[in-house]
Amino acid sequence: MSANQSPAGKQPTATYDSAFLRACRREPVPHTPVWFMRQAGRSLPEYLKAREGIPMLESCMRPELVAEITLQPVRRHGVDAAVYFSDIVVPLKAIGIDLDIKPGVGPVIAEPIRTRADLARLRQLTPEDVAYVTEAFGLLTRELGATPLIGFAGAPFTLASYLVEGGPSRNHEHTKALMYGDPQLWADLLDRLADITAAFLRVQIEAGASAVQLFDSWVGALSPADYRRSVLPASRKVFEAVSEYGVPRVHFGVGTGELLGLLGEAGADVVGVDWRVPLDEAARRVGPGKALQGNLDPAVLFAGREAVETKTREILDAAAGLEGHVFNLGHGVLPTTDPDALTRLTEYVHTQTAR
Amino acid sequence: MSANQSPAGKQPTATYDSAFLRACRREPVPHTPVWFMRQAGRSLPEYLKAREGIPMLESCMRPELVAEITLQPVRRHGVDAAVYFSDIVVPLKAIGIDLDIKPGVGPVIAEPIRTRADLARLRQLTPEDVAYVTEAFGLLTRELGATPLIGFAGAPFTLASYLVEGGPSRNHEHTKALMYGDPQLWADLLDRLADITAAFLRVQIEAGASAVQLFDSWVGALSPADYRRSVLPASRKVFEAVSEYGVPRVHFGVGTGELLGLLGEAGADVVGVDWRVPLDEAARRVGPGKALQGNLDPAVLFAGREAVETKTREILDAAAGLEGHVFNLGHGVLPTTDPDALTRLTEYVHTQTAR
Repeated sequence: MSANQSPAGKQPTATYDSAFLRACRREPVPHTPVWFMRQAGRSLPEYLKAREGIPMLESCMRPELVAEITLQPVRRHGVDAAVYFSDIVVPLKAIGIDLDIKPGVGPVIAEPIRTRADLARLRQLTPEDVAYVTEAFGLLTRELGATPLIGFAGAPFTLASYLVEGGPSRNHEHTKALMYGDPQLWADLLDRLADITAAFLRVQIEAGASAVQLFDSWVGALSPADYRRSVLPASRKVFEAVSEYGVPRVHFGVGTGELLGLLGEAGADVVGVDWRVPLDEAARRVGPGKALQGNLDPAVLFAGREAVETKTREILDAAAGLEGHVFNLGHGVLPTTDPDALTRLTEYVHTQTAR
Repeated sequence: MSANQSPAGKQPTATYDSAFLRACRREPVPHTPVWFMRQAGRSLPEYLKAREGIPMLESCMRPELVAEITLQPVRRHGVDAAVYFSDIVVPLKAIGIDLDIKPGVGPVIAEPIRTRADLARLRQLTPEDVAYVTEAFGLLTRELGATPLIGFAGAPFTLASYLVEGGPSRNHEHTKALMYGDPQLWADLLDRLADITAAFLRVQIEAGASAVQLFDSWVGALSPADYRRSVLPASRKVFEAVSEYGVPRVHFGVGTGELLGLLGEAGADVVGVDWRVPLDEAARRVGPGKALQGNLDPAVLFAGREAVETKTREILDAAAGLEGHVFNLGHGVLPTTDPDALTRLTEYVHTQTAR
């Protein structure tokens, strides 16, 4: 049981009672909570300054730096949650996979994983492998007070895509060749990645995460039938492995309009929606008993204040009938976004939804 | 009235009576017709040889080369239609826009179009601007015999994205900033691009195209409400401008699951579907009176013969109740595809659907 939960028969903590966690639990909120995917990152000058001269992967392994970068957008924008600053490949690095994050490219894996023999390189992750995460979360929960901290991990399909392709891929040829061509090896690979991901999230929750987001960046490349057959069992295993903690589990992938119901079925409490599907339509696809997160197109932030407010108003209207709504972008903050536009957007959602 | 059409009261030509054009018109077919987006291109060794030392844009302007490259996949695979080898930016180059197609990057526009003054650079296209197209189509229709030739153009939204961004873009920030921030300038830009696109397609039909495909590569980046408001009027203008010829009009964009009904509404006779939406579900979204085209994931071709046949069988089953079905991939042929896999796939669809 994590510290920020409501222990049976005791007073709920201020964190437990925060707007973000209340919305995730589909309880009444004082205002619609706001956070932004990639809120900690390149749109902030203080981030660029803090990262100066430090490679991405190294910056993810320095607890003080992780804490500082995670806190920056909370201080600046007044968002309702912090999200752990990390990268999808951090747990793979932690178990000894030879990889690097190359600027302008993304993660590059020295030796891709494509055969049964390669599976042996994917050993289980232990808390000792990511001691820097526990340390960073300790610093963060002390600093954050009542503001919840969202844990973060990449989902098995997306991790598999990086491992099989050897890096970012537009078309996922090798990944799909394995998935369609050797279903048993594929299932074993995803199962192993599910165990690693679950262990990584458990470390984060034990260290104070109040919620977790499982990010399946590339899964929108699959049809519903393939998702159900080849991905859902592994994602479900991750969600089930952390269910005992009772913290809200958020699930998101871009371009997943066809998969929204299945993302919920996999075990998410909150389903993230990109900007292509209006939230009321998304609610029909996801069904009852889930909160939704989203879904302003991050590119709208380049169109001026009036356009941002018009599109945001449309989203709040579409969200009016939802059981629970966490305001977010429909994908990560784009690097060249004006940070003031994000601060104004946070204020706008708060004032428009104040009850 | 184009030469391959059925003039009232006269015998239809063999082209008019081809499986491809019959399927587009939702008439009974001897077998499900097959063609592949990007069938003419980098997957073929004979293409690489023909293009050797010739820059992409130049190769689009040499009639004999265009004809040869367009014919190569018809000879090799026995597909049911040829598709005019070109690039989306060819009509822009033809009206004097300073641009180049850079290997590994894509089209790069020297001076992006972002202001009202910039619109003046987009003059109307005349047949003389693209005399090489007329010449290439003349060569092609003589060689192709009864095999139909599909004309090709990029749709106004996608052309606008290249012009406004200055090149390929992942997030279309500048395009959307203009679309949301200055709706009148945006509408005027798309209207002008619709006129240019329509003129380009009219040249192709006059020169012997039996059908046209309007390719809106990037439009899947929009929500349905934004598509309806900001894109549909221009795409409709293109389709209406060629309606008098009576040739089937195909419309496709990748990642357009949410937009399928609207792509039909814009005026398509045949709606292309990517692999994310099963064809029976696509038919529900598009509604009656339209044929569908698609939708094998091009990455499946990397998974071996058995997987290709299994997935193809699923598609043919989902297509069983359609009014008209043209078999295609759900996106363009990937450059590293084994060409023999495409030949086998063509044969497989033909034998499986022979009536």
